[in-house]
Amino acid sequence: MVQTCELIREGKSKRIYATTDPTKAVEYFKDEAMAFQGLKRGRILGKGEVNNAVCKTFFTLLSEHGIPNHFIQQLDSRQSLVLRCEMIPLGVKVRNRVAGSLERRTGLPGGELLIPPVVEFVYKNVNMMDKPLVNVSHILALKIATTQELEYITSMALQINEIISAYMRDIEIELIDFTLEFGRYNGKILVADEISPDVARFWDAHTHEPLDIDRFRRDLGDTEKAYQELLHRMMGMDR
Amino acid sequence: MVQTCELIREGKSKRIYATTDPTKAVEYFKDEAMAFQGLKRGRILGKGEVNNAVCKTFFTLLSEHGIPNHFIQQLDSRQSLVLRCEMIPLGVKVRNRVAGSLERRTGLPGGELLIPPVVEFVYKNVNMMDKPLVNVSHILALKIATTQELEYITSMALQINEIISAYMRDIEIELIDFTLEFGRYNGKILVADEISPDVARFWDAHTHEPLDIDRFRRDLGDTEKAYQELLHRMMGMDR
Repeated sequence: MVQTCELIREGKSKRIYATTDPTKAVEYFKDEAMAFQGLKRGRILGKGEVNNAVCKTFFTLLSEHGIPNHFIQQLDSRQSLVLRCEMIPLGVKVRNRVAGSLERRTGLPGGELLIPPVVEFVYKNVNMMDKPLVNVSHILALKIATTQELEYITSMALQINEIISAYMRDIEIELIDFTLEFGRYNGKILVADEISPDVARFWDAHTHEPLDIDRFRRDLGDTEKAYQELLHRMMGMDR
Repeated sequence: MVQTCELIREGKSKRIYATTDPTKAVEYFKDEAMAFQGLKRGRILGKGEVNNAVCKTFFTLLSEHGIPNHFIQQLDSRQSLVLRCEMIPLGVKVRNRVAGSLERRTGLPGGELLIPPVVEFVYKNVNMMDKPLVNVSHILALKIATTQELEYITSMALQINEIISAYMRDIEIELIDFTLEFGRYNGKILVADEISPDVARFWDAHTHEPLDIDRFRRDLGDTEKAYQELLHRMMGMDR
């Protein structure tokens, strides 16, 4: 029986609670949604349950491929038990096609394939409104991680991109891009946080319709339905 | 006798003219100044002459250190003859102390020393208002330069930083940061464009007063005087 204690932090899609075991934490997945640095807020009914189930599937998949991550077990429909990491304040984005901010930054046409994938780091500073792009030399100046750690993180992110892309391809979904977060635990770097449609772009492989948070961000409608459709296809895989 | 022909391009501080020799171009240094993506415009009397002289000094210094660059010779007080390169559309910024956009991007305190220096690439796309920060994987996706070329450019930029920092230290000026541009000429990569107080931050080593375009940008006053002071100290070195 896991006993949750105080709230450690609350993000746009999750609450993280301490437990009586100082090495473990509980992630509670919310229905709340946020975009444009909090300027747009809403609720996607059932999102928390979808994301909890999706995270379980992805983190289990990563473990099967030997990728160290924070996931221990699902506790109920909205909560999972994870290793309590010291988070590295970076978002690590892998992009397989041009979308969103990359289109604005580079002028490359939206939807263009990126081979090899583009990898970006953004700085997650709680005192800043946005999450600015940073390069390796910025991260070294900020003393967030070493060059070796960044190389390791990049190679893990690219491996995860291959693993999840292949898994999704089988259910006719294309992984367009996603943002990972990493944490330190016992001297090791683990994939932590979440891997879900809240932090990724998943397109139907045929129609290129988004099955992710972009439906909310861009007012495309049927957001709940898209989350359920994604989960439905993933659960079909497990059967 | 150099015969200038049509205007190839006009930037915020220079006009570049073709010559009757297709391998050479003429840079004409203007007094006009611009900041904040052209929102602020003005004139710094005598700036063109200062920058032309400063460029001559810096490019000659680089040649003495074996750094390939575009400079051939000064033609008159505002014009220099250079090799006509195919420009690589990147600004390569080297930073020795936190200032300007780095302060906003990272939250690091202005003036903090950066050891090792921070290196940034910005994308110079004529169709874009601003010059966004890009990382190596963006540059590869844009097919602007190869990984090997970027490594070469970075190592050149860091060498130039050492050379100019040492030179300026002798006249009690600190090189805070500067932006280089590179061009391709005959299969080689050369330092091109300009190295001047229009694209660098130079601080008096003792008072930390800027002797550069920041005086104009930040309405600090005495901009003309600061440009002349910088030139005066540099010319004293040559004597």
